[in-house]
Amino acid sequence: MSRIRVMVAGANGRMGRQVVQMVLKDKELEYLGGIDPSFPAENESILKNYPLYKNFEEAIIERRPDVVVDFTTPQTVKQNTEIALRMGVSPVIGTTGLTYEEILQLDKLAKEREIGGIVAPNFAIGAVLMMRFAQIAAKYMPNVEIIEMHHDQKLDAPSGTAIKTAELIARERKEILQGHQDEKEIVKGSRGGEYSGFRIHSVRLPGLVAHQQVIFGDQGQTLTIRHDSINRESFMPGVNLAIKRVRTLSGIVYGLEHLLD
Amino acid sequence: MSRIRVMVAGANGRMGRQVVQMVLKDKELEYLGGIDPSFPAENESILKNYPLYKNFEEAIIERRPDVVVDFTTPQTVKQNTEIALRMGVSPVIGTTGLTYEEILQLDKLAKEREIGGIVAPNFAIGAVLMMRFAQIAAKYMPNVEIIEMHHDQKLDAPSGTAIKTAELIARERKEILQGHQDEKEIVKGSRGGEYSGFRIHSVRLPGLVAHQQVIFGDQGQTLTIRHDSINRESFMPGVNLAIKRVRTLSGIVYGLEHLLD
Amino acid sequence: MSRIRVMVAGANGRMGRQVVQMVLKDKELEYLGGIDPSFPAENESILKNYPLYKNFEEAIIERRPDVVVDFTTPQTVKQNTEIALRMGVSPVIGTTGLTYEEILQLDKLAKEREIGGIVAPNFAIGAVLMMRFAQIAAKYMPNVEIIEMHHDQKLDAPSGTAIKTAELIARERKEILQGHQDEKEIVKGSRGGEYSGFRIHSVRLPGLVAHQQVIFGDQGQTLTIRHDSINRESFMPGVNLAIKRVRTLSGIVYGLEHLLD
Amino acid sequence: MSRIRVMVAGANGRMGRQVVQMVLKDKELEYLGGIDPSFPAENESILKNYPLYKNFEEAIIERRPDVVVDFTTPQTVKQNTEIALRMGVSPVIGTTGLTYEEILQLDKLAKEREIGGIVAPNFAIGAVLMMRFAQIAAKYMPNVEIIEMHHDQKLDAPSGTAIKTAELIARERKEILQGHQDEKEIVKGSRGGEYSGFRIHSVRLPGLVAHQQVIFGDQGQTLTIRHDSINRESFMPGVNLAIKRVRTLSGIVYGLEHLLD
Repeated sequence: MSRIRVMVAGANGRMGRQVVQMVLKDKELEYLGGIDPSFPAENESILKNYPLYKNFEEAIIERRPDVVVDFTTPQTVKQNTEIALRMGVSPVIGTTGLTYEEILQLDKLAKEREIGGIVAPNFAIGAVLMMRFAQIAAKYMPNVEIIEMHHDQKLDAPSGTAIKTAELIARERKEILQGHQDEKEIVKGSRGGEYSGFRIHSVRLPGLVAHQQVIFGDQGQTLTIRHDSINRESFMPGVNLAIKRVRTLSGIVYGLEHLLD
Repeated sequence: MSRIRVMVAGANGRMGRQVVQMVLKDKELEYLGGIDPSFPAENESILKNYPLYKNFEEAIIERRPDVVVDFTTPQTVKQNTEIALRMGVSPVIGTTGLTYEEILQLDKLAKEREIGGIVAPNFAIGAVLMMRFAQIAAKYMPNVEIIEMHHDQKLDAPSGTAIKTAELIARERKEILQGHQDEKEIVKGSRGGEYSGFRIHSVRLPGLVAHQQVIFGDQGQTLTIRHDSINRESFMPGVNLAIKRVRTLSGIVYGLEHLLD
Repeated sequence: MSRIRVMVAGANGRMGRQVVQMVLKDKELEYLGGIDPSFPAENESILKNYPLYKNFEEAIIERRPDVVVDFTTPQTVKQNTEIALRMGVSPVIGTTGLTYEEILQLDKLAKEREIGGIVAPNFAIGAVLMMRFAQIAAKYMPNVEIIEMHHDQKLDAPSGTAIKTAELIARERKEILQGHQDEKEIVKGSRGGEYSGFRIHSVRLPGLVAHQQVIFGDQGQTLTIRHDSINRESFMPGVNLAIKRVRTLSGIVYGLEHLLD
Repeated sequence: MSRIRVMVAGANGRMGRQVVQMVLKDKELEYLGGIDPSFPAENESILKNYPLYKNFEEAIIERRPDVVVDFTTPQTVKQNTEIALRMGVSPVIGTTGLTYEEILQLDKLAKEREIGGIVAPNFAIGAVLMMRFAQIAAKYMPNVEIIEMHHDQKLDAPSGTAIKTAELIARERKEILQGHQDEKEIVKGSRGGEYSGFRIHSVRLPGLVAHQQVIFGDQGQTLTIRHDSINRESFMPGVNLAIKRVRTLSGIVYGLEHLLD
């Protein structure tokens, strides 16, 4: 099997550098070079050993990769992706900022060219699996609570992942009244925040990073699905999976979960 | 929607009594009566308020239930099930002891009669979901270890559930070398038991009942799927699900997991 | 060493029966008999093999135990204990209902007779250790949150144990502002209930019994102390410890924690 | 109260730099400067804003700190500490390599000068508390197992912390036969490694850092003490505590646990 030929847009960025290293380590992938208008930091010797392009279009035309990974900026991602699709290159996009309408336009373009692309707000494969399993479990075990735990400098509670998980659960969960109907809070707020009939609890402490458990209860048993993330490296296995599967898609897929069988 | 008409074979047994109570509480189900050659205990007033048959065939002929739940004995389950299938009654079987050949024979009979049945070694729906999720996750996160924890009077290690989970994981998991190749055990056995390239750990302590966690690791993240069971009631939601879905099946299905969408 | 001679008041009650069995199994203890005005249930053959008194005073005078365990009623416990102390018998009291003033009176009486007694609201030794450890840890790690999890028929949130733990933590914890000062709740209540500057979260699900974790966070680390209780048997090791240590005390001690070194 | 005047030996090292930052942030401490024969890295602007000495003795004589923190090398720590003690400066030592005999010599010297010092192999205060609590709990709940979990590049199993915890438990634990006497391992090693009658389990997975749980079981309950460490910052609160308490000591104390009340 020939290797998948990959370029990385935003190669000098924090995520981009990690993607480059991940691609270089995988024997099924071939790294053709990076794309970034900025100069690499002094000590980024890895980048300097490979081609580094300043212009996206020039790079794609010259190297013709199979896949281009995009961790750039909200300002450039749309145009980058249009160029890629027109050249028959499958995009794997971790950059935020694309609107729903823009994704639909890109999807149309991809289908015209008969290729696939993926846009994913969260490449942590463990988090995506957690959300998927929570959605499935909610069908069979409608009594559920979410506990998410993050470092104490986080501003919002609950976390975005907790809210997304809750949405997915709410879609499948039979509407039931949880808990005792005469339940009362001696300390206000102790029963957590209510979302669509079930509860979310947000813990904030130094020493935590990003953790979530979804606990389902039923007679005599509980089922817990837990994800613990300690750093940004956790996105790499998901980016790797996307690179390997994107060319089997048709049109633009939104969310890593759709790549799972 | 008309209610599903249910009889319970082995109604005086430990599991049977719980099934009767579960059926009586569910408004979608109608309890027609129990079947048990033994007399109910003095204090089982619930059973005494409903018909109780001593003979399986007589009960089925007289009451014509939609579904018969069987928690009887290895000696009687095969014959019971043949009778039920011939009368067009769908069996939900928790009794152990049916061999693979016997299940195949029953499957053939069920298909001739164009009805469905289910045989399940484990009706704890949370445990079944845990095993299923572990199998899916193993495709994407091949680094895995199992920790099962049981009360200290359990004889075998690892537990049957842990071994079954390991089998399911092994089917999907890419074969990789886990851990450091020069790893060494200072205390022998501390790295646990090896199963198909990954490790199983068995904890035994008083105060535990039946618990298992399957931990998947990848760069910067872990995903944990955990099931905690504290008593036999944990089987009831699974029996309930089986009663409600068995009539949509064709032939005999082995394992509750096949009822999950 | 001679065995400690024990009687059990309330021997026919739910707790009393378990105490009797615990005493009978421990070779360092000698069971002299039970005290209970009610008749034992038909199937309580254990009780029938040993003396069973209807009157507390008569039993104490006749058998002269070293220790009397009291799981009776709020109406009788005060008088029972006065009788015991006057006869030089050390009381181990799990019965609720004694007021602060009554305990002070009993303490005075015990000191006059130069013997010890213990009154404990919670004999679960693991819960007592959890509270003690939480109190110690709070001195060194003032960032803390409590998550308590109970079955979904519990009325009050937080649990009594959570509130008692919080009180003990608050005594030792340096007053600090936890979390980000601009923190905001997108879903109201998600950050839990506030107690003295830190948060308590109460989870309620079927399949849970009685569980609590106290999580301390600091730079780069967390320390978690967790207690899981699945049934009433969890009180027996604490009653056992109290029986063995009560005679080394002087006066009435309130709370099992004071028996820990 | 006047601030404690602190110098840091090994200020350019990985640990030293973190200590400097920690000292600068604490208003009860005054940072007098660093000591390090090497030059600071280009980007270490913090160090360049404060005095930086190349010679230990010269620094101590010139600045006369109250406390000197030592994260240097096994080759220099002994001599550094002798100099500090002779000058009446209390040492807080995280450097490894001091032998038992050397610590005794330093202790004698410290007592002659009537000052205190501390040598600690582990400054993670959460880990020290975990070990201490485990030792206490073992007196009351002798049934125990340890599960330690580390990243998959760790060579040795069990971890040093697990072995030290096991030693502390073994000192207090009543010798009992844990588990069922007819217990058998279907998969060899699944019951873990035996240490002094109880079991240790070592989990190794990518995505883990350094984690340990000590689980105590008794009738109807379990007590779990868990420490999770995600990076080297976890040592700073312990170094801070040592700086603040070292001057209340007499002689050299080995182990942070002795600073806990």
